[in-house]
Amino acid sequence: MDHSQWIRNEFRKMSQDLGFLFTPREEIENRLARVKALMTKNKIEALLVIQKMDYYYLSGTTQDVLLFVPLEGLPLLLVRRELERAKVESPLGHVVAIKSIRDFPLLIKNHYGRLPGNLGLELDVLPVKDYFRYQELFPGTQIVDSSSILRDVRKIKSPFEISLMRTAGEMAKRLYEYAGSILKEGMTEIEFGGLLDAAAKKYGHEGVLRVRSLNYEAYSWHVLSGLTGGIVSQSDSPMGGLGLSPAFPVGASRKVMKAHEPILLDFGICYHGYQVDQTRIYSIGEMPRQFINAYNACKEIHDTVLEEVRPGADTEALFLKTLVLAEKLGYKDSYLGPPGLQTRFIGHGIGLELNELPFLTQGHSTPLEEGMVFAFEPKMVFPGEGGVGLENTLVVTRNGYEILTPTENTIFEV
Amino acid sequence: MDHSQWIRNEFRKMSQDLGFLFTPREEIENRLARVKALMTKNKIEALLVIQKMDYYYLSGTTQDVLLFVPLEGLPLLLVRRELERAKVESPLGHVVAIKSIRDFPLLIKNHYGRLPGNLGLELDVLPVKDYFRYQELFPGTQIVDSSSILRDVRKIKSPFEISLMRTAGEMAKRLYEYAGSILKEGMTEIEFGGLLDAAAKKYGHEGVLRVRSLNYEAYSWHVLSGLTGGIVSQSDSPMGGLGLSPAFPVGASRKVMKAHEPILLDFGICYHGYQVDQTRIYSIGEMPRQFINAYNACKEIHDTVLEEVRPGADTEALFLKTLVLAEKLGYKDSYLGPPGLQTRFIGHGIGLELNELPFLTQGHSTPLEEGMVFAFEPKMVFPGEGGVGLENTLVVTRNGYEILTPTENTIFEV
Repeated sequence: MDHSQWIRNEFRKMSQDLGFLFTPREEIENRLARVKALMTKNKIEALLVIQKMDYYYLSGTTQDVLLFVPLEGLPLLLVRRELERAKVESPLGHVVAIKSIRDFPLLIKNHYGRLPGNLGLELDVLPVKDYFRYQELFPGTQIVDSSSILRDVRKIKSPFEISLMRTAGEMAKRLYEYAGSILKEGMTEIEFGGLLDAAAKKYGHEGVLRVRSLNYEAYSWHVLSGLTGGIVSQSDSPMGGLGLSPAFPVGASRKVMKAHEPILLDFGICYHGYQVDQTRIYSIGEMPRQFINAYNACKEIHDTVLEEVRPGADTEALFLKTLVLAEKLGYKDSYLGPPGLQTRFIGHGIGLELNELPFLTQGHSTPLEEGMVFAFEPKMVFPGEGGVGLENTLVVTRNGYEILTPTENTIFEV
Repeated sequence: MDHSQWIRNEFRKMSQDLGFLFTPREEIENRLARVKALMTKNKIEALLVIQKMDYYYLSGTTQDVLLFVPLEGLPLLLVRRELERAKVESPLGHVVAIKSIRDFPLLIKNHYGRLPGNLGLELDVLPVKDYFRYQELFPGTQIVDSSSILRDVRKIKSPFEISLMRTAGEMAKRLYEYAGSILKEGMTEIEFGGLLDAAAKKYGHEGVLRVRSLNYEAYSWHVLSGLTGGIVSQSDSPMGGLGLSPAFPVGASRKVMKAHEPILLDFGICYHGYQVDQTRIYSIGEMPRQFINAYNACKEIHDTVLEEVRPGADTEALFLKTLVLAEKLGYKDSYLGPPGLQTRFIGHGIGLELNELPFLTQGHSTPLEEGMVFAFEPKMVFPGEGGVGLENTLVVTRNGYEILTPTENTIFEV
């Protein structure tokens, strides 16, 4: 059978029957309108959207595409592979094949009537080699940075996006309860993490957590037990764990989990590309008082500071407030990492990527807005002993916030 | 306890007890010598190595670092996070902390005596924004592209690297045998893939397959059954499968696996960062003759063309030979994809990344060399019906090749 014909006839129904949700047309139109408002403000005539999560957001597809968005007129989706799937997945009206990047200027001219005077590209992620190629292809066009426009628009989540994250949060709840049912003394961290990953995929988790960065990778199997919870690694987080090798120096290791240790489970879930992040503490039998107290301090910071989350609250002030509280509770030297290695953020925006806006961090003062979603994660690190903490993902609502990760905020003692 | 002190006292023994292998000093020295030979040839005074797999290769660590490699004198490893771990993991002698990228020129001057006249950076992956920052930091330095140097050096694997890949291949064999023992009618593709992922992690698989690309991601759970094996997607491979959503349109789906379908398992394994890639076909009960014949054709192409693999064999000629053979066997319209969507490669270099040199593809004529490692994957695609194929990873030896994925080349009928 002809592949294109099969996709045209069968793909929509088959994929929907198997759980695919396609981004609604109005959703894409709203996003494009918000992007265009910022293009106007920044005097950008057209965008060429080159990064996968950016074009998924604005077109509904993650096929191998480039998305041209002129301020005036309709967007053009250029598809390298696979055209027919892109046509089903994206509600955009102009979807064409592009065989070679050399054809790009001509396709733009045919669609838009001319080459734009300036063109926004995501220079925070675009490789230099590609940049040089675009300069050659558009000799008369000024290339400008569009990354802050895309990040700004993406930081406010729509009800559609929030509903996907709510579903991810429900899967996380199911997974964390399942984790308590299988955790046993003598399992290794990676064995436990692997079983959780298998269960999560069965529930609908997509397995990969995406990060906007050249080198930063997120692993969805952060299981840190006892002293591995006291180890800092390459990631900008309070504790990183031991990992599996010098090539994967973060997250679960081959360490055997023992009774009475704090076991930190930081497991993100992804559904239709949308992630939630969550941390809970498990123990096999009771933990020493030190860790219970430290967990309770994290919970107090979590509960106290979240009371102030609402539109208008300042991100930096929220972060600083957690510092004051941690010190008052007696955890100055453990809060967010060991002395000299403490991270300087308490929350990170999350959505299609794990490092979206806003950041709740020192030096970034910005008011919260309705629809922002971030993970909030007070954690305590004791080198040579262990680590504990609590993390939830929440959305800022009109008057406060809603937790998207409804797992009980408690120590899971098994 | 002090974190740095704990790392200095305990980290090496603990991590080695839990399976960490650190890259030997002579290995790093040999790699640096080969890089410097190409720097001399290309008249590059110094490299700044910014990409994780490149600095892992040349330093032994994947902590958050930058590696400065001058042609004359010793390399300098600049560590953002975490210094003490980097000191244990890397055999390099000059390992220092860097707090801010603004300190970079001063640290280079202190180490090297001056700023270099030119500086090689991996422009195939470096984001434009970072490039602009380096131009500001080094106003008198010419920035040149070093990516081909690093890719050229990395394409020839050392006995140490090959031994890691051999270990990964043994894990793959164990996994593929295990797969046959758990495969059951009624499981979904993703459920099967998730269980395999959990088992593989228990054996030592590190879970993530790395690709040198902005947007291209590799999933280690390619399970395609029946008609999903006939679906092309965004990836440049014969078949991509349905995937889980428009955000993850490749690999295993929620489709239930049925008896008599071809079930294609393409599952890469990663050990200490080194990957092998492998594909085998499973079926629950016997498959229709059509798929058995197509698999046998793949095996004939595999066996016939590999006979010519040895140092000096031309990569493009090997690819073209598979085309001739596929046509002769009657599979012109199924080989490497459906008409109009066929991929144009039969092999890809593999190591720390899934898309290393060499490529066995049209338009890339280069002689094979001893120590090159590549995956070789003849596959047949039948839209609306299914896909079959065979894939092994092999290393070019002095007189021929050695298969690094020793799983039996057969259909696993369960």
